[in-house]
Order: sequence, then structure tokens, then C-alpha cells
Amino acid sequence: MVVRIKRKPVEELDFLVDSVLDPHTPPLARVEPGETVEIETWSALARVTNPVTGPIYVDGAEPGDALVVEVLDIELPGQGTVAIIPGFGSLEGWLRLLEPRRKTCAISDGRIAYETDDGRTLELAADPFIGTIGVSPEFEAITSLSPGRHGGNMDCPDVRPGNRLLLPVFRPGALFKLGDVHAVQGDGEVCGVAVEVDAVVTLQLGLRKGWTIGWPRIESPDEIMTVGSARPLEDAARHAFREMVEWMASDHGWERDDAYMFLSLAAKARIAQIVDPLYTVVAKLDKKYIGGV
Amino acid sequence: MVVRIKRKPVEELDFLVDSVLDPHTPPLARVEPGETVEIETWSALARVTNPVTGPIYVDGAEPGDALVVEVLDIELPGQGTVAIIPGFGSLEGWLRLLEPRRKTCAISDGRIAYETDDGRTLELAADPFIGTIGVSPEFEAITSLSPGRHGGNMDCPDVRPGNRLLLPVFRPGALFKLGDVHAVQGDGEVCGVAVEVDAVVTLQLGLRKGWTIGWPRIESPDEIMTVGSARPLEDAARHAFREMVEWMASDHGWERDDAYMFLSLAAKARIAQIVDPLYTVVAKLDKKYIGGV
Amino acid sequence: MVVRIKRKPVEELDFLVDSVLDPHTPPLARVEPGETVEIETWSALARVTNPVTGPIYVDGAEPGDALVVEVLDIELPGQGTVAIIPGFGSLEGWLRLLEPRRKTCAISDGRIAYETDDGRTLELAADPFIGTIGVSPEFEAITSLSPGRHGGNMDCPDVRPGNRLLLPVFRPGALFKLGDVHAVQGDGEVCGVAVEVDAVVTLQLGLRKGWTIGWPRIESPDEIMTVGSARPLEDAARHAFREMVEWMASDHGWERDDAYMFLSLAAKARIAQIVDPLYTVVAKLDKKYIGGV
Amino acid sequence: MVVRIKRKPVEELDFLVDSVLDPHTPPLARVEPGETVEIETWSALARVTNPVTGPIYVDGAEPGDALVVEVLDIELPGQGTVAIIPGFGSLEGWLRLLEPRRKTCAISDGRIAYETDDGRTLELAADPFIGTIGVSPEFEAITSLSPGRHGGNMDCPDVRPGNRLLLPVFRPGALFKLGDVHAVQGDGEVCGVAVEVDAVVTLQLGLRKGWTIGWPRIESPDEIMTVGSARPLEDAARHAFREMVEWMASDHGWERDDAYMFLSLAAKARIAQIVDPLYTVVAKLDKKYIGGV
Repeated sequence: MVVRIKRKPVEELDFLVDSVLDPHTPPLARVEPGETVEIETWSALARVTNPVTGPIYVDGAEPGDALVVEVLDIELPGQGTVAIIPGFGSLEGWLRLLEPRRKTCAISDGRIAYETDDGRTLELAADPFIGTIGVSPEFEAITSLSPGRHGGNMDCPDVRPGNRLLLPVFRPGALFKLGDVHAVQGDGEVCGVAVEVDAVVTLQLGLRKGWTIGWPRIESPDEIMTVGSARPLEDAARHAFREMVEWMASDHGWERDDAYMFLSLAAKARIAQIVDPLYTVVAKLDKKYIGGV
Repeated sequence: MVVRIKRKPVEELDFLVDSVLDPHTPPLARVEPGETVEIETWSALARVTNPVTGPIYVDGAEPGDALVVEVLDIELPGQGTVAIIPGFGSLEGWLRLLEPRRKTCAISDGRIAYETDDGRTLELAADPFIGTIGVSPEFEAITSLSPGRHGGNMDCPDVRPGNRLLLPVFRPGALFKLGDVHAVQGDGEVCGVAVEVDAVVTLQLGLRKGWTIGWPRIESPDEIMTVGSARPLEDAARHAFREMVEWMASDHGWERDDAYMFLSLAAKARIAQIVDPLYTVVAKLDKKYIGGV
Repeated sequence: MVVRIKRKPVEELDFLVDSVLDPHTPPLARVEPGETVEIETWSALARVTNPVTGPIYVDGAEPGDALVVEVLDIELPGQGTVAIIPGFGSLEGWLRLLEPRRKTCAISDGRIAYETDDGRTLELAADPFIGTIGVSPEFEAITSLSPGRHGGNMDCPDVRPGNRLLLPVFRPGALFKLGDVHAVQGDGEVCGVAVEVDAVVTLQLGLRKGWTIGWPRIESPDEIMTVGSARPLEDAARHAFREMVEWMASDHGWERDDAYMFLSLAAKARIAQIVDPLYTVVAKLDKKYIGGV
Repeated sequence: MVVRIKRKPVEELDFLVDSVLDPHTPPLARVEPGETVEIETWSALARVTNPVTGPIYVDGAEPGDALVVEVLDIELPGQGTVAIIPGFGSLEGWLRLLEPRRKTCAISDGRIAYETDDGRTLELAADPFIGTIGVSPEFEAITSLSPGRHGGNMDCPDVRPGNRLLLPVFRPGALFKLGDVHAVQGDGEVCGVAVEVDAVVTLQLGLRKGWTIGWPRIESPDEIMTVGSARPLEDAARHAFREMVEWMASDHGWERDDAYMFLSLAAKARIAQIVDPLYTVVAKLDKKYIGGV
């Protein structure tokens, strides 16, 4: 039986508890490692800023462990919203005179319809993922708009069904929260907004005890990935690549400088977003190069 | 008949003329638009810093035109070199105690062999491209280590056979130079060096008269791309994305803010390199969204 | 009569409440606008990271007001500590092989003695100020290591006796906290640490009702100042300068572009620190240019 | 007898030679070390971008030496110009709708008159300095808009009469150029323009043979200074502070980590400009702390 975790009614959302990842909010639910849960999430454009559902207390999670999140499924609604929000977005001040805009995109059968201003309909394949997903920081309450070592608003399309997200645990129970599902997003999320949707996310939560990591990590069937967030953007990339070097060294026997040279030949690097309080880069390496993970 | 443009003997390389893209060096060759040329290039690790072959004067090229470079073929040698150069590389100061390293990688049948420090041989598919390729700046002589609006050391793997590079022309004849072929490179070129090779490059050079562009652009069979370079890295991304918005607006009828929103859903963004004097980002859009280019 | 606000015993310090500026911690004291208080502060090197004393609830403070902090006096102890903390500091990775260091500096009669490694004693004039001082953010609990719109760890030497600090109010009562007094600090606080001391600070707290400001501001007898914090450092400067333009426009009748040009001739800009999670710049303008404030 | 070096007639200015610092332009004059020269300079707003007068060949200057420039006098004209140039300036995109502006400021008796838009006249004390001053780079021709290790467009108010500028020599004869005098400038030069003037500058040029420095340095009667330029701005500060540590270590017997800690207590840091292709920071230390220089 899969537990369903309901989101709050929209009128009860309170940014002091629902727009942060934090160690203070009382758990909304408690799960055993290995358990599968269905979680209802709000769109980032709901009544308060980017509300997140949770926290979920994972039994046995302790600082120094890694939380293992298997993303099993994301159920999309029939439409989503994209927008221009002046004062927000990567080309703010680089394009002249941006005005507020909002478009609704129909979603059906895994296709998203974008209506251009000149009347064409462009179809994009839905590629849903969880934009904001993370654990409680060690002692701060961090806005759900920001990514960081705790996960948070990474806006990383690789947090998608079929992939596994690994998060460092800082507080007992991990205190996991999530929200901000995107039906599809381009790299950089350049205007600051993707196709924002309410959604139902199915996850299996587990633990790797005593596996201490510095930044969020992702495994797909073919790749290992590390997710760094910082400003300026090159520091996000440096965090991601250093974390990859550490992973290759600690778990796969590489010398650090050898790993560094090899990544210079074989890594991939995606800009996840350049619009949030910290920017996010994902570094990737094909699993065939490291032995089975 | 294909013209062959020979590189200088290594002992004649002079960094005052061979390590810059500049308006002063007398042309090494002169070509008609539409002509195909074979150009010998030096490895970036040759006697002077990143030597470039040229300049090639393209008849009829005038400021305000775009130079069209069809990359037809890259002939690789039997081996290449990767290295760690202390003081250079994206994790300088982030990984402790980096010492100089140099490895030779055998290349054959489109495969590159990387020998790890613990004795494994990892095979990478060769994916050769031209690391440094550009035209004369308007009035500066810019080190061949730096990318910019003029192209230069973009270290962008998309400048590969089968793709078309478009460069703004700033000086009569364009004064095109190139070098620094990489047999393969990871995104970010994180240690500062790829598999560096001497090579022979086959190109067809053409012109789009009166087509004024702000930054280098690339066309593959499936995508259009823009290449921005700056520090910090987010400004490289902003240049690339703004140039993409301009391209969509000027040639394909998009409203600028509509293009901006759509890129937020559909763009790809690759980090080309974070090791040169300016960093480089490539923004990409699938051609199916813009109508045929 | 001056109220004395005691700091917690060191063994009771808890980073969940004492290393953040936040809306959740119950007030330690309550004051009327106009009241003078003496506050005991811990050194940033105390048992938990940069502990702050408070919060102090200021009666009548509401979001949209400005909290007015007159810094009257700072009482220094007989010694302070400077240190190198590897992994922290502006030249981390730029100077090789930094090892942990710690030096005690004697303080007496307003003089600080620095003993160099080669046995000289250098005397610096004490110039004490409050390194970390701020109000509760709107809904986050921000680490006391970070500066921001709410004040926090600005490490700005202009928050000194004789000057007035103005802070935006985000929560009822303002929820003011402070700590991290420095006996003296250089611009940039380059190694990450100044002469860190426990101290007793005397302040008068007041309100400007309905005076909404974007960033902390300071008034000395001769200058008005704005304090911006961000990464990269140029964005800290931009926040500070834009806030100065806004101040000149809203309170002193300047056209914004006229203020912008005039600041280009007359402003001063000090780098406060380049070591904290966000960096801090102080922009200054002589009061003679704006009419009496 | 003082040699007078005339600037070119304005109609002969050519940006290929007059808007760069470069190793190619034939010397305009040749001087002996110790010689005093009067040099006419153009305003940065002259016909071509930021024209510089020179190059001046200093007899005996070799790579690895330092060029010593004693700034003796700057003769100002009766007026100067400040402007807003859209697309240029630190708050471009941060203030809305900047339009081109230009104001003339009368200069007399060491006073500069700024007429505000609302009809007030504000008087600033003239504090003239040389905005662009440097030597030839090793092999590039760098735009006179950019600062760097070679000096160039540092826009640093400390290059003023009474102070001594020290520049690294990269080419035989140093190939010294200068221009862009400012009658007064605020820190940051925030709108991108100061009070721009044509001027006559009196300098004495000398050499420190075999004194190899990494970045421009300045000595005033009371302070030693280092000038770093980079993007982002924190890297400019890091270059300046590391150069100061090196100076203290190599010439004054400090241990590097001791110098680093001491600068954290005693340094000053001014933002020179945040508008040019690289940004500039000046780090300063009181001479009383280092022994006589």
C-alpha cells in the first residue's frame, strides 16, 4: 500500500513554514526506509512563494547518512503556466522593457502545447521533474527559492522518473520537503519560470547509512551526476566537479588528479538554472568509465 | 582542387604573430568564398602558447558580413596529450597540491585510449573539433588563449565536422585563423587541457553578406546555437541566450519576450570551458521550433 | 537607567537559535523606541559559529518601518584573537599551503598590539565596531555568518560608535540581534578573521515609522552610506549604489540619472568583506552634497 | 629642460594604433631614465575610443624591470565632461530606462562645478589623475578601455601628482602610453564616465632594474598600494591583496601567512572602477607598518 501525503489547502499556506526548508516545522508524515509514498505538490506560482510539501521524517536518518530518493512517477495536470516576472529572470536588464506575461500551456498525452504570440502552436515533449526537493539544512531555514548543499530549488531536469537522487542528511529524520514540479524546462530556466504545475509525485525513500556526501548527487541508468549551486556560476560548476572528483576517489579508487584529467575529457556539464538566489550546474559522467556504481 | 595551407615550421613560431588573433599579421593565404581549404594546425602545447595558423584573407569579406565556415573534416594524428598545468585549470585552489602531469593518449580508428594511474585502459570515442577558430578583432590583437565575439579559443565541441560556424567579420578579408584541435574534450575542459593534437582541418569558407551578428553562431543538422564568452560564467550564458533571442527575432519573426519564454522551456545550455581568460557557454535550440533556417 | 541585556552562558549556546537571524526565537528582551540598552556579545570564535545576542523586540516596529540604531559605545576586553582558518578566507587557493594559525593581540588604551612572526610588535589604533547586527528576515532563518538586506554579518567598520545604522523591519518587533564585535579590521577582512572580541555594546534603539528601505544604511556626522551584499562582489556594489540613488531620489529630490552621474564623481566605495557567504560593499556620499539629512 | 610630447591632431587619431596598448606602434618619443617629460593627452571622449599618447620608449627598460613613473603635475583645462552612455555603466539594467546624457562642468582654481538637474551648483575639489596609463603587454594589443597587469585603464585616483606608479616591463623600452585624465572621479566610476578632460601631464620616468612585479603598484608618501584588475570584482581584490602579500614577503621580510593575517587587520581597499572590461581594486597599507620603503 502506498501512503498518500496530502498538501495543505491553498488558503492555509504560510510562507513561514511552507516557503522554507528548515529544521523547525513539525513533520507532516513519517516513513520507514524503503517505503513508497505519493506526495501532492503545489505549483511554484501558488499563493505563497514556491510552497513545498513536508517535512517527511524518515525513520533512522541521521546526520552523515545519505537520503536515497527513487523518483518513480510524476502525474501531471491538464495544464501548466509559464510567465515573465519583471525583476526575475536571467536577461533582466539585458533585454529592454520586459513586461509581466503569463501563458497557459495545455498538457495531454505527454505533449505540451506552447502558443506563440504570432499564433503558431509548438509542441514540446513533457519531461516532468521535481524543481524543489531537499532536506533540512543543519540549522538555517532556507527559502524554498534557493538551492544549496541540502538540495532545494535546484531546478534540475535530471530529478526525473527513473533516476535516483541522493541528498546529504543534516538533521535526524532528514526532514524532507518537495514541490515546484515542472512539466518541461529548458537548461538555464532563462526567463525564471518553466511550465509550472501542481502534481502528484511517487517516490521511494531509502537511506545509505554513514555515506557522507558534500552536495546532491543523481544516478540515472547510464550516468552519475553531481549538483553544485553557488554564485557566480563558475563556482557552481567547481562545486559539482570537485564533488565528482571526490566521488570517483572515495568510491571508485581514482587518484584525484587522474580523475580531474579524465573529467576534462569525458564529463558533461548542464546549466540547470541561472535565475535563483544561487545558480546550479550538473556535472555528469558515463557509468561505463567508473565500473558499476 | 583543394588548397593546402601549411603551418609554419615549429622553430619559426613567434608569439607576437602566432599567439594572437589580430588585424596586423600579413595574410598567409587568400581564398575565394566557396573555396575548400585544408589547413595544418599546431597543438596548443606546441613551442609557443596556443599557436594559430593564418590569417586567411577571404575575398570580399567586409565588416558587417558573417563568415561561414563549413567544417568538413578533421584528420587526427596517432596520439594526443592531456596534462595538468599548475596555475591553470578550473579546480586550481579547489583541489589541494596539484602537480604537473602529462599523459599521452593513443588515437586509432576513432578511439582514444586513456591509461588510468591504476593501470586500466579506458576508451573514449574520438569527437574532434577545432578549439581555437576566429577572425581578427576590430582593432585589438587578442591572445589566442581567449575567446570573444571574434571566436577565438571557445573550446566548443560543436565546432565539429558536419556543423557550420558563423563568425562576425570586423576587418576586410575577415583574417581568419585557427588551431588547437582537440581529439575529444569534456564539457568545461575542467583541468584546462583536452586531448591536444596537431591536425589537418578541411573547411569550406563562405560569406553571408550584410548579415551582422553579435557573437559566434553554429548550425548543426538539428540545432541552432549561439556561443557567448565572458566572466563570470553567467554573463557568458546571458550573451549566448540574448544572441539566441536576437536571432529568433530578426530572422524568424519571434517577439523578443515570447522567444525568451520559449527558450525557458526548450533551450539546451552546455558549458564549453571554464579555464580560459573568458568562459564560454553554448545555447542551443532545436530547429523544429523555429522553421527551417 | 540603562537596561543591561546579558548574553547566554557559553555552554548554553545552541546554533539552532544563536547562530541565525530568524523570526522564530522568542525575544530575550523588549524595549521601547528611544531606550538605551547595554548588550553583552560573544566573539565570533565562541563555542558555536558566530553567536548573536537577542532577539530584542522593539515595541511598535512593523514591516515597512526602519529600525534606527545609534551606536553609542563599545567596551573592549584586554585581548582579542586573529586566526587563519583553512577553507575560509579570501586568498584560499591563491596562497599555497595555508595552515591554521591563531594569534592573541593585547588591547589597552585604545591600542592593539600585533606580534609579527619575526618578533616585531606593531601597534594599531583600536577602531571597534559591530560585525554582525541585524533584524529578522521576512521568513527565513539566515545563518549569522551571512549578511543581507536584513543586515547580519556585514563586517562593516562604519557600524561604529558615533554612527547611526538604519535597518529595514520585516517582522513585528524587528527582532534585533547582534554580536561579532571587532576591535579592528582591515577592508576586505581578507584572511576571514579580524581582532575578534567579546564586548559590551551600548545602543539607543529607535524607529522611523513608514520609512521603507531596501538595504541597510548608515549615517556618520559627515556621510550617508548604503550597504549592499551579494556575490559576485560587483553585485554588492550595484546594490549599494542603487540604494544610494534611491535614497537621493526619494528623500532629497534628485533625478535618478542625475544622482547616478553625480555619484560617478563624488562617491566613495569601501570593500567591507570578501569572505562571508555574501560579500559586502559600502557606498558613501558626503552630506554636504545632499543638503542636511 | 623638459621635453614636451605632443598628442596627434584629433583628425589623425586611428583606433588601430591609438586605442590600444601594444608592442607594434613605433615609438613617438624616446627618453632616458630620470628624464622629465610633459605629455599632452586626449580626453577619453575624443574622436576614437579612449585615445592614448605614445608609445614612449624608455632607454634600457627590459622585461623583468619595473618602470617608475613619478607623477609630478597635471594641468587641467577650463572644463570637462560627464555623461551617461547607454550600454555602459555599472547600473545598466539596474536603473530603468537610462537615456544618453552629457553635462559640461566648469573647472577653475581647483574647483569643479556640477549643475544638478534642479538647478543647484555643487562644487567638488578637483583631484586630477591619469585614468589610462601603462606599458605594452608581452604580445597582445589590448584595448585602451581595459586595465590589466600592464596598467591600462585602471581609472585609479591614486595615480595622482605626488604619487609614484610602478609598472612591470614586458617589452624592451617599456613602450609607455597614457591618456584619459579625470579632473575628479568617485570610487567605482559608477556611471562609466568621470569628469573627462584633455590635459598636460608632467612625469619623471625611471627604472628599477631586475625588480619583477606581478601587477601595478603605487607609492604615496604614506602608503604602499597594489592594483588588481579582473572579473568578477572579488578576483580583482584577490590579485591586489596577493600582490601586496608578495611585496611584503619579498621586500620586507614578512612570512606570507603573517602578512595575510595582518592585512586582515590593517589594509584599506578602494573600488577604482566597475565599468571597464575588467574591474579594478586598489589595496593599501600604511608605510608605518612595513618599515620605510
